Amino acid sequence: MTATRFKLLIEYDGSALVGWQRQDNGPSVQQAIEEAIEKTTGERVTVHGAGRTDAGVHALGQVAHADIAYPIQPDRLREALNYHLQPSPVAILAAEVAPAEFHARFSATGRAYRYRIINRRAPLTVDRGHAWHVKVPLDAGAMHEAAQYLIGQHDFSTFRAAFCQAKSPVKTLDRLDVRRFGDEIEVIAAARSFLHHQVRNMVGSLSLVGIGKWSADRLAAALAARDRAKGGPTAPADGLYLTHVSYDN
Amino acid sequence: MTATRFKLLIEYDGSALVGWQRQDNGPSVQQAIEEAIEKTTGERVTVHGAGRTDAGVHALGQVAHADIAYPIQPDRLREALNYHLQPSPVAILAAEVAPAEFHARFSATGRAYRYRIINRRAPLTVDRGHAWHVKVPLDAGAMHEAAQYLIGQHDFSTFRAAFCQAKSPVKTLDRLDVRRFGDEIEVIAAARSFLHHQVRNMVGSLSLVGIGKWSADRLAAALAARDRAKGGPTAPADGLYLTHVSYDN
Repeated sequence: MTATRFKLLIEYDGSALVGWQRQDNGPSVQQAIEEAIEKTTGERVTVHGAGRTDAGVHALGQVAHADIAYPIQPDRLREALNYHLQPSPVAILAAEVAPAEFHARFSATGRAYRYRIINRRAPLTVDRGHAWHVKVPLDAGAMHEAAQYLIGQHDFSTFRAAFCQAKSPVKTLDRLDVRRFGDEIEVIAAARSFLHHQVRNMVGSLSLVGIGKWSADRLAAALAARDRAKGGPTAPADGLYLTHVSYDN
Repeated sequence: MTATRFKLLIEYDGSALVGWQRQDNGPSVQQAIEEAIEKTTGERVTVHGAGRTDAGVHALGQVAHADIAYPIQPDRLREALNYHLQPSPVAILAAEVAPAEFHARFSATGRAYRYRIINRRAPLTVDRGHAWHVKVPLDAGAMHEAAQYLIGQHDFSTFRAAFCQAKSPVKTLDRLDVRRFGDEIEVIAAARSFLHHQVRNMVGSLSLVGIGKWSADRLAAALAARDRAKGGPTAPADGLYLTHVSYDN
């Protein structure tokens, strides 16, 4: 019996999750969806995600694929998965039939992330767990200017987690925009793919620029050093959202 | 010893709170702030809020006042209150000295609320508890048009909670705008003051217009009936935010 490959568009609140990937130490997005598929179809399948988000990281547009033999229309699949996913903070926004050669991870041609910073003295309330709270005033204009030094193809070792499994530290960063809206600073990052912790490490270094501790040149020198020890801190997971994964066509 | 009157600008996540007002059955915003003031100054004072939000309702710009004899600068007061408020989901955004005749509730000349609806099939994840989830497609344009019938001075008994304590059901609604941004529908309501549950009851009735069950004329007729039984359902607290309280000067 031939299985149908389904492409899933997924949203989740990472606050209470151990991340995308199935792990023994708590609830993951992958496990939640795999269990919902088994409850719907009786099949034990592997769900392949476009990006392995860490614990606490959110997604508004994660993409995954899974092969399902049980005959079911995409909209019915979405409804059934959402029913079985409750009360986990994971939702299937859309399901569609994909070509057999489609792969959520390997076919992806672009990934976009949003990082939210709330820059004020007062602690967070409605945004708790959903943004990074920075009390010291940040100069978003200076952060944006410095960020442009990271655009293009570089060895991003300075912004790479020690446990990153990518074969090469060379990536091409297409976009890194920093904008302020009142108390909120939004960082938008886009690339074909990212190293592990790359966005959070870039945001952490940009925060040093924002408080005036680092100049844009210092950020450029940190990049050129290709040494994680020369980079700034890792910004917390709370503020990070995987917003979009793109594919050709 | 003369006390100083302080004006406080307050933000809170109402999800786990019983509402603004001190009650025996759970944590309230008023109690949290009164206890923080006592921890800061040793004084037991009453905190007077501009509006008594219900359980589950959020605020981005609630205003309150309190009289404090202990000598303290406004910024120091804000910091100390925020320190003692932790981990409650209540934060003081700003504190300032107010004239002795200032009263958060009685001096207020305007109140603005935002109501958030997420209009899609999939359950909420990152917005859970922070918006009303409506699965049936809503026509935001039709809702906005109908909403304009409620603008102006009217007897709003149709949208008034049974336990509302206002002396008169006559209020003047200055603004009721409904706009769609993708899957999200935002309702902005502004008036000098509102009846208890008025915004949630107006939004509930507008949702009937949005699904096509009610025409704008039906909404106007419901208003004219001055009868709660002729109104639509009460929209859930989750989507409601007190965003702004205004004062003359």
